[in-house]
Amino acid sequence: MAPPDKRLFRCGARCKDRGVEPTSTPAGEAHDLVSRYREVRAWTERLAAPLSPEDQTVQSMPDVSPTKWHRAHVTWFFETFVLAENEPGFSAFQEQYWFLFNSYYEAIGPRYSRPMRGVISRPGAHDVGRYRSNVDDRMSDLLDRVDEGTLAKIAATVELGFHHEQQHQELLLMDIKHVLSLNPLRPVYAGSPAAATPATPLSWLDFDGGLVEIGHEGSADRGGSFCFDNELPRHQQWLASYRLADRLVTNGEWMEFIADGGYRRAELWLSDGWGRVNDEGWCAPFYWSQIDGVWFEHTLHGTWPVDPTLPVCHVSHYEADAYATWAGKRLPTEAEWEHAAALQGPQEATSPPRGSDVSTETWHPRAAGPADGTLRQLFGDCWEWTSSAYLPYPGFRPAPGAIGEYNGKFMSGQMVLRGGCALTPPGHARASYRNFFPAGARWPVTGVRLADDGGR
Amino acid sequence: MAPPDKRLFRCGARCKDRGVEPTSTPAGEAHDLVSRYREVRAWTERLAAPLSPEDQTVQSMPDVSPTKWHRAHVTWFFETFVLAENEPGFSAFQEQYWFLFNSYYEAIGPRYSRPMRGVISRPGAHDVGRYRSNVDDRMSDLLDRVDEGTLAKIAATVELGFHHEQQHQELLLMDIKHVLSLNPLRPVYAGSPAAATPATPLSWLDFDGGLVEIGHEGSADRGGSFCFDNELPRHQQWLASYRLADRLVTNGEWMEFIADGGYRRAELWLSDGWGRVNDEGWCAPFYWSQIDGVWFEHTLHGTWPVDPTLPVCHVSHYEADAYATWAGKRLPTEAEWEHAAALQGPQEATSPPRGSDVSTETWHPRAAGPADGTLRQLFGDCWEWTSSAYLPYPGFRPAPGAIGEYNGKFMSGQMVLRGGCALTPPGHARASYRNFFPAGARWPVTGVRLADDGGR
Amino acid sequence: MAPPDKRLFRCGARCKDRGVEPTSTPAGEAHDLVSRYREVRAWTERLAAPLSPEDQTVQSMPDVSPTKWHRAHVTWFFETFVLAENEPGFSAFQEQYWFLFNSYYEAIGPRYSRPMRGVISRPGAHDVGRYRSNVDDRMSDLLDRVDEGTLAKIAATVELGFHHEQQHQELLLMDIKHVLSLNPLRPVYAGSPAAATPATPLSWLDFDGGLVEIGHEGSADRGGSFCFDNELPRHQQWLASYRLADRLVTNGEWMEFIADGGYRRAELWLSDGWGRVNDEGWCAPFYWSQIDGVWFEHTLHGTWPVDPTLPVCHVSHYEADAYATWAGKRLPTEAEWEHAAALQGPQEATSPPRGSDVSTETWHPRAAGPADGTLRQLFGDCWEWTSSAYLPYPGFRPAPGAIGEYNGKFMSGQMVLRGGCALTPPGHARASYRNFFPAGARWPVTGVRLADDGGR
Amino acid sequence: MAPPDKRLFRCGARCKDRGVEPTSTPAGEAHDLVSRYREVRAWTERLAAPLSPEDQTVQSMPDVSPTKWHRAHVTWFFETFVLAENEPGFSAFQEQYWFLFNSYYEAIGPRYSRPMRGVISRPGAHDVGRYRSNVDDRMSDLLDRVDEGTLAKIAATVELGFHHEQQHQELLLMDIKHVLSLNPLRPVYAGSPAAATPATPLSWLDFDGGLVEIGHEGSADRGGSFCFDNELPRHQQWLASYRLADRLVTNGEWMEFIADGGYRRAELWLSDGWGRVNDEGWCAPFYWSQIDGVWFEHTLHGTWPVDPTLPVCHVSHYEADAYATWAGKRLPTEAEWEHAAALQGPQEATSPPRGSDVSTETWHPRAAGPADGTLRQLFGDCWEWTSSAYLPYPGFRPAPGAIGEYNGKFMSGQMVLRGGCALTPPGHARASYRNFFPAGARWPVTGVRLADDGGR
Repeated sequence: MAPPDKRLFRCGARCKDRGVEPTSTPAGEAHDLVSRYREVRAWTERLAAPLSPEDQTVQSMPDVSPTKWHRAHVTWFFETFVLAENEPGFSAFQEQYWFLFNSYYEAIGPRYSRPMRGVISRPGAHDVGRYRSNVDDRMSDLLDRVDEGTLAKIAATVELGFHHEQQHQELLLMDIKHVLSLNPLRPVYAGSPAAATPATPLSWLDFDGGLVEIGHEGSADRGGSFCFDNELPRHQQWLASYRLADRLVTNGEWMEFIADGGYRRAELWLSDGWGRVNDEGWCAPFYWSQIDGVWFEHTLHGTWPVDPTLPVCHVSHYEADAYATWAGKRLPTEAEWEHAAALQGPQEATSPPRGSDVSTETWHPRAAGPADGTLRQLFGDCWEWTSSAYLPYPGFRPAPGAIGEYNGKFMSGQMVLRGGCALTPPGHARASYRNFFPAGARWPVTGVRLADDGGR
Repeated sequence: MAPPDKRLFRCGARCKDRGVEPTSTPAGEAHDLVSRYREVRAWTERLAAPLSPEDQTVQSMPDVSPTKWHRAHVTWFFETFVLAENEPGFSAFQEQYWFLFNSYYEAIGPRYSRPMRGVISRPGAHDVGRYRSNVDDRMSDLLDRVDEGTLAKIAATVELGFHHEQQHQELLLMDIKHVLSLNPLRPVYAGSPAAATPATPLSWLDFDGGLVEIGHEGSADRGGSFCFDNELPRHQQWLASYRLADRLVTNGEWMEFIADGGYRRAELWLSDGWGRVNDEGWCAPFYWSQIDGVWFEHTLHGTWPVDPTLPVCHVSHYEADAYATWAGKRLPTEAEWEHAAALQGPQEATSPPRGSDVSTETWHPRAAGPADGTLRQLFGDCWEWTSSAYLPYPGFRPAPGAIGEYNGKFMSGQMVLRGGCALTPPGHARASYRNFFPAGARWPVTGVRLADDGGR
Repeated sequence: MAPPDKRLFRCGARCKDRGVEPTSTPAGEAHDLVSRYREVRAWTERLAAPLSPEDQTVQSMPDVSPTKWHRAHVTWFFETFVLAENEPGFSAFQEQYWFLFNSYYEAIGPRYSRPMRGVISRPGAHDVGRYRSNVDDRMSDLLDRVDEGTLAKIAATVELGFHHEQQHQELLLMDIKHVLSLNPLRPVYAGSPAAATPATPLSWLDFDGGLVEIGHEGSADRGGSFCFDNELPRHQQWLASYRLADRLVTNGEWMEFIADGGYRRAELWLSDGWGRVNDEGWCAPFYWSQIDGVWFEHTLHGTWPVDPTLPVCHVSHYEADAYATWAGKRLPTEAEWEHAAALQGPQEATSPPRGSDVSTETWHPRAAGPADGTLRQLFGDCWEWTSSAYLPYPGFRPAPGAIGEYNGKFMSGQMVLRGGCALTPPGHARASYRNFFPAGARWPVTGVRLADDGGR
Repeated sequence: MAPPDKRLFRCGARCKDRGVEPTSTPAGEAHDLVSRYREVRAWTERLAAPLSPEDQTVQSMPDVSPTKWHRAHVTWFFETFVLAENEPGFSAFQEQYWFLFNSYYEAIGPRYSRPMRGVISRPGAHDVGRYRSNVDDRMSDLLDRVDEGTLAKIAATVELGFHHEQQHQELLLMDIKHVLSLNPLRPVYAGSPAAATPATPLSWLDFDGGLVEIGHEGSADRGGSFCFDNELPRHQQWLASYRLADRLVTNGEWMEFIADGGYRRAELWLSDGWGRVNDEGWCAPFYWSQIDGVWFEHTLHGTWPVDPTLPVCHVSHYEADAYATWAGKRLPTEAEWEHAAALQGPQEATSPPRGSDVSTETWHPRAAGPADGTLRQLFGDCWEWTSSAYLPYPGFRPAPGAIGEYNGKFMSGQMVLRGGCALTPPGHARASYRNFFPAGARWPVTGVRLADDGGR
C-alpha cells in the first residue's frame, strides 16, 4: 500500500480531532515516548476488558461507535500517521482496515459510513486486539530505533496520537453507557457507585471583570504544554464583573425544577429546545426513568435510585439553559469560565487518578465536597455547558498542511463545554480546553454550573 | 412467572407464523417426537456454528434479526407454549427473556421493538446456547414422562414448533447473508460455490385449465400431513389453459434484460416498482455489484463473478414483473403454479439433503439440469414470485383460540411466492405451501419462472 | 409545438386512466359528440363555480390536486390527444401548459411533480377558464368540420376524454372536500344535507355460486358500451355460494363498533392496518371529530352531527376489514359483488340525476330506502371495499400503442372498490367498473357492504 | 371575546418579534401616530397589489407564509394588542381570526400550524382586505379620541406594531419571491431590473481595535430612537484591529469561486455546510439555474442572466464562509461590523426611498458605486452574514411582562446578519440592528462582505 494521503485525515464529527501545530510538541526523549505510549495504549485495553465481543460490536445510534471500532481507529491513527511514513518497508497490517477505521471515509458513501459501523461484525474484538498488538510492537521498534532527527519530527504526531486516543477513551465509555442503557437486563459495566454523601449548599463566588486574556498560553515549542489548536491564540477579551456558583446543580435541585413544571413551561425554553421537548417527549435527564413513582438513573454501575446530592448529568444545553432561566440565573460564557478556572490555578489534579482495575473505579460524577471558597467540581465530574457558541478565536488560523486542514470544520452549530467529566482520562483536560457538542446532545456527561452578572 | 398469556403470541412480520388447527397433527409417539425434536434443534445450532459472537449480534436492517435472536426466539416458543403449560413446577429460565425474545412485544413500544434487536448485546451468543440446552433438557424430560393423553394434547404444538424453527432456520441464513454482504472484507459463510454447469434451454410445458382444486388436502387428524392454516381450505378454482417455463430465468438472461435497458424503461414497470427503481437506484439484482465492468454476486460462499447459467435470485416482485413484461410473458398465478406442481407429484425430494457439516454444503441456487419434460427447479433453488396477492382462500376461517387469532393478519399488501429455496430446510416446503413477502422485498432468495396463456 | 409524444401520457396515481381499446367506441355522429362534449365540459365548470380562486389553488396533501389543476388537466387531454393530431395548423394555447397539466411529468423531477401542484399560483382560476373556452371552441370547430373517416378515428379518444373528465369531476369534489375540511371556519360547498330518514334493518340476500362470468361484455365495436380496459376480458370464475347484506353499514352501526373498542383491539385488524391505527391515531372515520362528546362529520354541506341512519363513509379498507371481522362477517370479493349486481340488472339509474345548480344538490351518501329484496345502495352512495386486490383479469393484455402502454401500471398494492358514490357523475359507473385505492386511503367516499359464505 | 391573553403572543420563528421595552417609545402626538400608521399600513397593501388571490394563497415551503396571511397577521397584532385592551366595547372582527392569524398557535397543534398556512383558502385575499379596513378605521377612531394618558400608554405598542409590520413587509417580498420562483411560467412581480453598471474594484478599509462600545444607545424614553431589545444593552467589547472590504462580493467573483471547484472542495467548508452541499446538491446561489451553459437568476423582476457586477445574493452562511475561506479571508464579527458602520455615521439614507408604485421600483441589490473610501452597500442591498452566533448581549435581560417573555427565545442555533437589503422598508434598519437566520437559510436576501485581521 502506498502511504495513505494524509490530506484525507479527519476524525469525524464525534472524534473532533483538532490537530496541533505540527512543531509544537517538545521533542521528548524516545524512552519517555515509549513509556507514555504503553501507558495510554494499555488503558484503552483495560477499559474494554469488561466488555464481551457482543458488547463491543453494537452501535446503538448514529452518534455512537462500537467499542471495537474505537480500539481499532486509534490504532489506525498510529499506523497511518506514524508508521506509514517512517517505518522502513512499511506494509499495512490489513489493507482494508484503512477504509474500515478511517473516519474520513464516512463522507464518501453510505456503505461504510458512520451509521453503518454497527453492521461490520468482522474483524471481531479479538482480531482488533491482534491489530493493536501488531501496531504496538512496530511502534516500539520504531521509537527504539529512529535517529534523533526523525524522532523530533514524529514526536508531535505521536503526542497528538496520545491525546486522540484519550478522547476516544472517553467516547468509548460514553458510547458503551448508551449501548447498555437500552438493554432491559440492566447490565453493569463496573462495581458499584460511590456512597452517598451529604448535600452541601451552593455559594456564589465573585469575579472582577476587565480586560482579561483567555486561550492556551502557547504551544510546546514555545515552552508550553500540549494544546489543541482551537485553544489558540491566547487573546484579550473584555468581561463585565460576574459571579459563578461554587458547585454544580444537583439532582435534588433538578427534581425541584421538574416538580415546578420545568419541562412543561414553554416560557422557560429556547424555541429549538421547546421543539425537542415536545418532539422527543423530554421530561427528565437522559438516563432517568420513573419506576413506581421513583426516579432511577442508568449508570455504568447499573441502575440506581437518583441520588439528590450528586450533580445532575446528561442534560442538553437546552435543558441547562431552561434550568438557569427557571432559577433566575444564566449559564457562564466560556471566557468567564476559563478566566475563573485559571485564577484558581491548575485543576487537573482534581480528576481522579485511576488504578489498573477499571471494575473498582468510579465512573460517575461525585458529590461536591464541603464549600471552601473555591470553584468545586471544575474538572472530573461533568462537562459544563456554557452560553458560548463554538466559534474560532479572534486570529485563529488553521495550521498549514494536512491535519490542520480540518481544524475549524466543526465551528458551526455547536456549544462550548468546559471542564471535564468522570469519564475523562486523568491529565487530559485543562482550563483552556474547549469541548463542544450540539445543543441537543444528551449522551455526553454534561452538567450545569450557574452564573450571574456581578453586582446583583 | 405466571404462564404467559398465549393470546399475546404473534411471531411478527418476518416470522409469519400462521398457526395450525390445534388438533391437526398426528399424535406421533413420544419417542419419535423426541428424536425429531433433537434433529430440528441440532440443525439450528449447526447453522450458527460458523458465526462469531459478533456476527450473531448484528441487525443490518429492520427486517433482519440477529442470529442469536433467532436461536433464542425459537427456544422461547417451546418454553412458552409447551413447558409453561405442561412442565410440573414450571419456572422460566430467565424471566426477562420473555420480553426480549417474544416477537409480539415489538408492537408495544420502541425500546425493545424489532428494529432495536441489534442493540441488545446481552445475553450473548454463549448465553443463548445455555438457554437452548436448558430448554432442550426440559423438553426431553417432559416428552419422556408425559402420559399419553397429555402427549396427544401437546403433540400439535410441538409439531408447530418444529415448522416454526425451520422457518427461522431459513431466516437465519437469509439474514446473515445480508449482514455479511455489508462487510467490505467479503466474509464467507461456507465453502465454495458449486461448479458451473452448461446452460440448458428453456422449454414450455402446457397445462389444460378447467375446474381444478388447490389448497392442502386436509389436516393431519384427517389423515393428511402438516400444513399451515393459510393453505386451507382446499377449494375449487377455474383456470384457463396456460403454459409454464420448465426452468427458472437465468443470470445470463437477466443480463440481457439489463443490457436492453430493463432498469431504465418506465414502460416495463408497475408504477410502484418504478418508484423504487428511482428512489433506491436499482440497476441489477440485490446482491450484484459491478467491479471494473464485471458483475459480481455476494453469496454465502463469498463474492464471485455472476455465473450466467445459475438462476437469477434476490429480485423483487417488481423486477420479476418487469422482466416478464420485457420478455412478452407474465408471472404465474399461485393456482396455476400449485396445480402444475401437484400434477408433477411430490417434489420435496428435490431439496438437497443436508449433511452435518454446513461448511461443505451448497447455499445457493443451482443450475437447472437437462430438460426432461418436467418443471425443473420447483423446490430448493429460488422462491418463485407469483402474480397473486396474498389473500385468504375462499372459506378461510381463523382457527378458534389463541394461536389462530393471528392467522390472517398478514393477508394484506404482500405477494405469494411458491416453491422453496436453497436455504429452505429439507422437508419444509410442499406444493401447497404459501410463502409471502411485500412486492419490494429483495433479501429473500427469490427468482422468476415465466408463464403464458395457453394457446399462444 | 410539435405534437406531444403520446407515449408520455399517464394520468398519475390519482387519475388512474386506464385507457380504452382504441377502436372500442361507437362512432357516434358528430352532432351527438359535440352535444355530449358540451354537457360534460359544462358540468365541470358548474362544479367549480362555488369555489373562489383561493379555494381552487390549494393542495392540502400530496394525493389532492387543486381544483384549477383538475379543470386544466382534463382540457389538456383534449388539446393533446385530439387537437394536436387533428387540428389543421395546430398551435398550443400555451406551450408551458403542457408541462404544468401533463400528469406524466410528475415522474421526472420534483419541481413540477404532483406534491408541488399547490405552489403553482399562475395560471389562475380565471386563466384556466380562458384555456377551457379556447379548447372548447376549437373542439367544436374540429368536430363540426372533420370528415367521417377522421371522426371515426377520433371518436374513441373523445369518448375516453369524457370518461376521463368524469373521473376528475369526482376527484375535484373529493379533493375540495379535503381542502375545506382543514379550515377551522368550517366552510360549506353547497346547500344543506338531506333530511334524516328512519333506519331500516339489514337483510341478507343469498346467491348461488357455480361457474359464473364477470368482466365487461365487450367493447363498443362489438356492440357493447364503453368500458375501461381493466374490465376486460370477460372471463369465467368459480364461486362458492355466498350472501350479501342488502344495504351498507350505517353510522349507527359504526358507533357500536367504536363503543366496543373497535379501534383499540389489535385482534380485529390486519397487521398493516393496526400499524396505521397506532401511527396515525385513527379512532373514527376520516372526517369525524368529537365536540363535547358528540360526533360531528365534515361534509360538503358543512359540519353536522353524525346521522346514525346514513351509511358510514370515508373509512379505509383496513377499517372496513376490521369492522367485518368484528361483525363476524367478511367483505365481498369483487367477483361476488359484480355477479350479484349484474343479476339485479342495470343500476346506473340509482345514481341521482343532477340539476344545473350544484348548490341545491346532495353531495353525501343517502340513507337506504326500505328493504325490498334487492341490493340497496349499489351505486351512488359509497364506493364499496372488496376483499380483492387490484390485479389484471386472466387474459388481460394491454392495448397496443400509446395509451395502452400504461394500462396495467397500477395493478399493484391496491384494493378494488365497486359501485359508485354520491360524487360520481351520473352514468359514469356500472356493474363491471373497477375502482381501486390503496388499503389505507380514507379521503375517497368509501363504505362497507358485508358479505358471508353461503349456507351459514 | 375576552381580551386575548397577551402572554400567548409570539410571532413565530420567521417573524422574530423581539419586543421592546414597553416604555421605550417617544409619546408622539396622536396626529403623528395616525399619519405614520396610515403610511405603514398603506405600504403593505401596495406591496400586495400586484399579486392575484391565487398568488396570495400559496405557501411554497414551511418557512414561507402566504401573502394574505402576512396581511392579516400584522392586522391581528393591532387588533389584539391595541384595540382589544383600549377600544370601548371591543368586539373582534371575526373571532376565528384570532386562531388563524395568531402565530403563537403554531405551537399547539398540527392542524393550524405554520406548515398548514397554505391550506387555509378562506378568508380569501379580499376578505383580508375587509379585515384590514375595519381595523384601520377602528385604529384611527381610537387614536383620534383617546386622552393623552392612554395615548402615552399605547404609543409604544403602536410603534412596535409599525416595526412589526415592516418586518412582515420584507418577509412578504422574500416569501412571494420564493413562491414565484417555483413557477415555470417565470412570473414577474415588478418592472425590469436596474441597468447594468461597470464593476468597481474591491478595496480594504482598516479599523483600529481597542475597547469599543456596541449596542443601541438606549431606548426612546431615554431620548433615543426605537430599537428591539436584542440590540440592548450597549456594552463594551475588545476588538483587535481589522479590515473590511469596502463592497460586497459580486456575482462575477462568485462565478470564479464556482469555476475553481468551490462547491466541490470539502476542505473549504464547515462540516455541516458540506453535508448540505451534498444532501441538497448545492452548486450555485439559491436562485441561480443554468440554461444552455449560461447562469440565470430568478428575481422579482423575472429571470435574467446573472449580472457579474451585482452583489451575489441568496447564499447561506455556509456558502459565505466557504467563499471567505477560498478567498483567504474571513467573515466579520457583528461587533466589527457595527463598530465600523457606526464610525461611518447614519446610513439609513442609503436605503432607496420608495415611490407609491411598486411596479416601477427596484427589488434587487444594486451594483456598488465607485470606491470612495467608505463602506459601500452597507444598507439596502444584501443582509451581510457575520461570523457571530446570535446570542444575548452581556447583561441582556428580557423585558418584564408579556411581550418580553419571548424575547430571547430564538437566541440559539442562528447566525447574525447585519445591514439591510433591497426588500427592507426604508428607515427600518440601523447600524445596531441584529437580523438572524439559521446558517443554512438561503431564501433571505443575503450577501457577503469579506473581513480580515488587521496588520496583514
